[in-house]
Amino acid sequence: MDLKRLAQQIRFVREVDKLKTIERQTLITDATRQENDAEHSWHLALMALVLGEYARDGAIDLLHVVRMVLIHDLVEIDAGDTYCYDTAGYADKAERETAAAERIFNLLPADQADDFRALWDEFEAADTPEARFANALDRLQPLMHNVFTDGKMWQRHGIVKSQVVERNQRIDAGAPDLWRFARELIESAVDRGHLAP
Amino acid sequence: MDLKRLAQQIRFVREVDKLKTIERQTLITDATRQENDAEHSWHLALMALVLGEYARDGAIDLLHVVRMVLIHDLVEIDAGDTYCYDTAGYADKAERETAAAERIFNLLPADQADDFRALWDEFEAADTPEARFANALDRLQPLMHNVFTDGKMWQRHGIVKSQVVERNQRIDAGAPDLWRFARELIESAVDRGHLAP
Repeated sequence: MDLKRLAQQIRFVREVDKLKTIERQTLITDATRQENDAEHSWHLALMALVLGEYARDGAIDLLHVVRMVLIHDLVEIDAGDTYCYDTAGYADKAERETAAAERIFNLLPADQADDFRALWDEFEAADTPEARFANALDRLQPLMHNVFTDGKMWQRHGIVKSQVVERNQRIDAGAPDLWRFARELIESAVDRGHLAP
Repeated sequence: MDLKRLAQQIRFVREVDKLKTIERQTLITDATRQENDAEHSWHLALMALVLGEYARDGAIDLLHVVRMVLIHDLVEIDAGDTYCYDTAGYADKAERETAAAERIFNLLPADQADDFRALWDEFEAADTPEARFANALDRLQPLMHNVFTDGKMWQRHGIVKSQVVERNQRIDAGAPDLWRFARELIESAVDRGHLAP
């Protein structure tokens, strides 16, 4: 056994525990508190298993999707969660997250650091079938949570329907049937007065 | 698109959100609060990706391991978390969890319900290479958290070394190198006075 290698891996496993403290601008569905990034990542991975059949590009590599969603938010350990409708925060988001990726993935042995970094880059670029599907899930899950919690976080941040549609239409590129479903969710939120038209 | 099928899948995706409210008898590593089952499941899945090379049985099916760990605690939505050193709680644990599995997995379309139930049964039986490795991770992660938080939860529950060794030796069946590492962790906790000898 290569003890140095194992020590690097354990260091990483311990470091990523911090993802459990990164709060998102989404409520869990009982609306008692905000969700954190670790819970969100778990939920996306499970959604990939359940909803994989809706991927636009047919038979995709599910393990690849799951690996991407499990690690996609690790950079937020350093960079924090940038609210998706925060245009100011988005100005330096890429820079902050790239620095975080450098630090966090390089805790791993070099082969795994390269592998995880490539996964994260692929997710960010969103231009493989697996990355498009992973990104679709990453939009759909918070949208569902917003609808299921009567739009409380949308109202808190003054978000209106056109912003939600623009933000989430990316679902279409990864999973067109889920985008059709998402459109209905958005309409239902407007009809019930939970999202401003 | 089969709308009834999608509705069942979304119902399940919504229901499993409750896993985020099931508290475990383990602290997150900054020791500020107890971990919940969703975070724990995410951590195990990521550990499977990082530590897969230590599986006893050589090349295992990682997607299979990840699927198992992502769903292994869903039954606790109904059955609650049974503390691993609570012998009274263990008396009816299997019965409570089987009833929970019946309800929760059957929210899914029949084909997926059968598939997920089979995965959970396999995890519980722990007698395939993938299930043994998944079970090893499910022991190692809380052990690491206990050691990294100076044994606070062990002390709160009056747990001693022999109980920790007995509980965790199952790691050996799934990942002998990780068991060797775990033994060292346990010794270090005793040496530092965080675990009663």
